[in-house]
Amino acid sequence: MNRLFHVPLSPFCRKVRLCLAEKKIEVELVEERYWERDPDFLRRNPAGKVPVLRMNGMTMAESMAICEYVEEKYPEPPLFPATPEGRYETRRLVSWFDDKFHNEVTSKLLYERVNKKITGQGYPESSNVKAGAKAVKFHLDYMAWLLDQRRWLAGDQMTLADFAAASHLSALDYISDVDWNRSETVKDWYAKIKSRPAFRSILADQVPGFPQPAHYADLDF
Amino acid sequence: MNRLFHVPLSPFCRKVRLCLAEKKIEVELVEERYWERDPDFLRRNPAGKVPVLRMNGMTMAESMAICEYVEEKYPEPPLFPATPEGRYETRRLVSWFDDKFHNEVTSKLLYERVNKKITGQGYPESSNVKAGAKAVKFHLDYMAWLLDQRRWLAGDQMTLADFAAASHLSALDYISDVDWNRSETVKDWYAKIKSRPAFRSILADQVPGFPQPAHYADLDF
Repeated sequence: MNRLFHVPLSPFCRKVRLCLAEKKIEVELVEERYWERDPDFLRRNPAGKVPVLRMNGMTMAESMAICEYVEEKYPEPPLFPATPEGRYETRRLVSWFDDKFHNEVTSKLLYERVNKKITGQGYPESSNVKAGAKAVKFHLDYMAWLLDQRRWLAGDQMTLADFAAASHLSALDYISDVDWNRSETVKDWYAKIKSRPAFRSILADQVPGFPQPAHYADLDF
Repeated sequence: MNRLFHVPLSPFCRKVRLCLAEKKIEVELVEERYWERDPDFLRRNPAGKVPVLRMNGMTMAESMAICEYVEEKYPEPPLFPATPEGRYETRRLVSWFDDKFHNEVTSKLLYERVNKKITGQGYPESSNVKAGAKAVKFHLDYMAWLLDQRRWLAGDQMTLADFAAASHLSALDYISDVDWNRSETVKDWYAKIKSRPAFRSILADQVPGFPQPAHYADLDF
């Protein structure tokens, strides 16, 4: 059985979960308290991070390397466009969300409000939360600008770029840190992603100490 | 003419330069003071970072997305192995260096000692420099462990993983922050990479205010 070591609100784990679910690859989810640095876990992944995927006799780390591998081994349905230019744009946007959005928004809101509490690192730093709340607006506007020209973020087909973006935004939505009224275009895009069968496991996530808000799993949010 | 906007010691720019040079793709290098946030540059890349590559009528950002595109368009000589498993390992290691090594070492040594001065952000934080100097040892040992089992970092062929590692280490070597005596295996690996024609432009780099040390461009270091 394939096994994914993860934490529920990690956007990097969510991207891998969405990728596997879209391709109908079954996987057992195992929550991993990676910050406790269990020696067994560190043996599986010396980088000490989640996600870690056990599949086909391999133990894999690094979410993008995992998704590229899954795409190559299980190409249907494709999560990358057919052209090098389309694949470039998909990978650029995955990096945009996993690097820039992550640094400017996710780490400043989700990590301050949730990860710090769970890992016993104390209270949120209000200057970080303020900076994250400001930056998320810029990113929503950038997404709206892209989606005004394209059906999906990287072009006219749904790609891993949409899953990367939805992974970060859904994790922030769990703590009600996304203002869906800012852009009708972005809200419509999220409604389309959210209603996919691949998203069901994400909408069922529960984090102890952080009750799921009512709108989170509501398809008509 | 292809044009790469870069800064000389950026490991992300160096990875793209090595990738292009290995494939004998000519490119004009243009130094970009990205931290001054020139509006022309921000139009080319809203992420405001280098490298930015102009090629085939496209303006591309994000070093890994660029390298994957270059590999797809110009497959010879290959910088990724032929199997999905080999490509996974290559991508995992590129992420290892561009994410973990970058956070633990490059940002703590190179950015503290060089980038802060160039961008007018003051003096190095000694706790960061100390942490970086400690972490680089762990990473050199990890590389030695890999290279004891393999000819190159990701397997028996040279890949983008070797270029990613060499990009970070060569930038640190410019400020003499790599102890090549720590591992004969790693030193031999670096000597092999360093003597490739693709490396020549990197060894010719000069940064105002930071004179190149004698061993930096010496193939017999």
